[in-house]
Amino acid sequence: MVDPIPFSALETPVPLVDLDRLAANLDRAADYARLHGLSLRPHVKTHKAPCVATEQIQRGAVGLTCATPFEAEVMAAVSGDLLVAYPPVGAPRARRLAALPGHVSLTVALDSARAIDDLHAAARAAGRSVGVLVELDLGMHRVGAQTADDAVALARAVIARPPLAWRGIAFYPGHIRENISSQDAAIAALGAALGSALDAFRRAGLDPDVVSGGSTPTLWRTHEIRGVTEFRPGTYVYNDWTTVNVGACAWTDCALTVLATVVSTAVPGQAVIDAGSKALGREPLRGADGRGFGALLEHPEVAVASMSEEHGILDLSRSSWRPEVGDLVRVVPNHACIVTHLHDLVYGVRDYNVETSWPVVARGRGQQALV
Amino acid sequence: MVDPIPFSALETPVPLVDLDRLAANLDRAADYARLHGLSLRPHVKTHKAPCVATEQIQRGAVGLTCATPFEAEVMAAVSGDLLVAYPPVGAPRARRLAALPGHVSLTVALDSARAIDDLHAAARAAGRSVGVLVELDLGMHRVGAQTADDAVALARAVIARPPLAWRGIAFYPGHIRENISSQDAAIAALGAALGSALDAFRRAGLDPDVVSGGSTPTLWRTHEIRGVTEFRPGTYVYNDWTTVNVGACAWTDCALTVLATVVSTAVPGQAVIDAGSKALGREPLRGADGRGFGALLEHPEVAVASMSEEHGILDLSRSSWRPEVGDLVRVVPNHACIVTHLHDLVYGVRDYNVETSWPVVARGRGQQALV
Repeated sequence: MVDPIPFSALETPVPLVDLDRLAANLDRAADYARLHGLSLRPHVKTHKAPCVATEQIQRGAVGLTCATPFEAEVMAAVSGDLLVAYPPVGAPRARRLAALPGHVSLTVALDSARAIDDLHAAARAAGRSVGVLVELDLGMHRVGAQTADDAVALARAVIARPPLAWRGIAFYPGHIRENISSQDAAIAALGAALGSALDAFRRAGLDPDVVSGGSTPTLWRTHEIRGVTEFRPGTYVYNDWTTVNVGACAWTDCALTVLATVVSTAVPGQAVIDAGSKALGREPLRGADGRGFGALLEHPEVAVASMSEEHGILDLSRSSWRPEVGDLVRVVPNHACIVTHLHDLVYGVRDYNVETSWPVVARGRGQQALV
Repeated sequence: MVDPIPFSALETPVPLVDLDRLAANLDRAADYARLHGLSLRPHVKTHKAPCVATEQIQRGAVGLTCATPFEAEVMAAVSGDLLVAYPPVGAPRARRLAALPGHVSLTVALDSARAIDDLHAAARAAGRSVGVLVELDLGMHRVGAQTADDAVALARAVIARPPLAWRGIAFYPGHIRENISSQDAAIAALGAALGSALDAFRRAGLDPDVVSGGSTPTLWRTHEIRGVTEFRPGTYVYNDWTTVNVGACAWTDCALTVLATVVSTAVPGQAVIDAGSKALGREPLRGADGRGFGALLEHPEVAVASMSEEHGILDLSRSSWRPEVGDLVRVVPNHACIVTHLHDLVYGVRDYNVETSWPVVARGRGQQALV
């Protein structure tokens, strides 16, 4: 906490997080988990910051979800219960996971015999037990066992390979991108597919302790997916334009914006800001028809219509607002997780003042230079 | 230089630079500049690394081009002649530029009275002279004065505001994306527009010392644009799939790849690698019909067809190659400059061995945390 400073003191482009909105977003998901008796294991990919993870744990999160070994290393400082929801393929990745501090209860999701081999070799060499969730494909068609029989076979292979310990199943419903109010059929199909997989596991004499699923677009309907014990939303801490468009948050729940400066109005009919693809990411707007790479917080009718690396072109055609060179604007990005990944530092703000800052500690890969 | 290590020792995803291809790319542009008597002022946005900039300078580059204040700060260690080809709008940006080390001859491109005001205030406060290029829009329609009269007026405004010193004009032909062999009309139109602007400057009694333009897609035709004194390509050091598609390099000139691991083949007809949008960027392939976000170096018929943050989906439909989980692949990205911006470290390789590594020092913004 420092004496508040005005936005105009910051060099742009730079990400801002509205501290009140962040707290409300954290509270809302924690309350939902409590109401429905679900375990909340937030995915840290969105914030990559131990200080935000700590806020999630203080509100009752059972642990954290990570994608990369570096995220897990960084988050080991604030949580003793980590799920790496990513196939542990390749000796360097598996070894780095197995080398996490001993106080961490580590679980890894996987979908192949090769991943079991690599994780087993690393776990045995490190002398540590590693929990395993078998990943199921329930419609996303990205990773995951294609049939319940394949999944059961993987679970049995894990059980046969101590110090690996089979703990349950994981899935990711990232294919459900309908508006939350139109998800009935998709949620029902997901529940049916999951139910049938669970039946197959029980017929095989295997009872999963953990059934882990859930994304931000399906966050508020997780309790309708029978059998789920924990959910792993990431984006909900900050939200973004896509989350608004799928109906999983309101425009006023968007906590993350990119502060940018209007640097040119020379070309008629447009204004150029200093947030381009290196500050916003070139992410599509999902969940609605629409173009552009972000919209202005205070002029939502103005989108970033096109970008180069350090330039964003504002489309002013739907707005009567006419910016001047030097004006500051705040862009609500299409995809918050990418913005975090592009910046080293985030500023925490209230109203029009900057109150704090924190490093995006787990940005990058934490790889070692050769010496 | 270390004992070479195999790719399999690296945790993926990670960028590799082929050291022989890098050297050849650097040589080719330096030779071209020498042949045509043009000043080469490479844009550092592509590599953001002082060690690569040093190689450029050793081959005769007259100085470096930067977009951000942080790039300029980092490159001040290896060059005393920097052009910041970005409007110096906003007091924090202008002050940071004016605070560059005193040995740096600093020039800044701009297109507005506000930018002149901000730069003038910062330069005067810092007690340093700053060169200015007036930016012209010659068809890109992003930034730049719209008429020669506007440009002349800006130059006069600069001349009236010491310690600013008007040095010439700048333009960026980023709108020319035809194949290099089909650029005749576009290059002719650019030359005509530039010639007419130069005539207007001379009629006004203003003779530019510097006429700065040029991009990688137009690199090898720069000498056909009459009046240009220097060019500022960036991508040519590494090249990428887009550069291949516009004909400005050969496939075998691509020096930058992202090393990735096949992490899942569970879903039939595809393979999943660990290079997604957080490793490759979601950049379009320009210069040709085509989809996807990169192609495999050793299987160019295989594209990264879709991505999530940490997953890339390989489209195998045009290939007889069938990867297995654990296989290593190298992805030639659509846009090298974005890949660099996503990673902290680059490994230098020859054949199938890693020989060295270097940090992407100017990645990010170098902003200060509040304390």
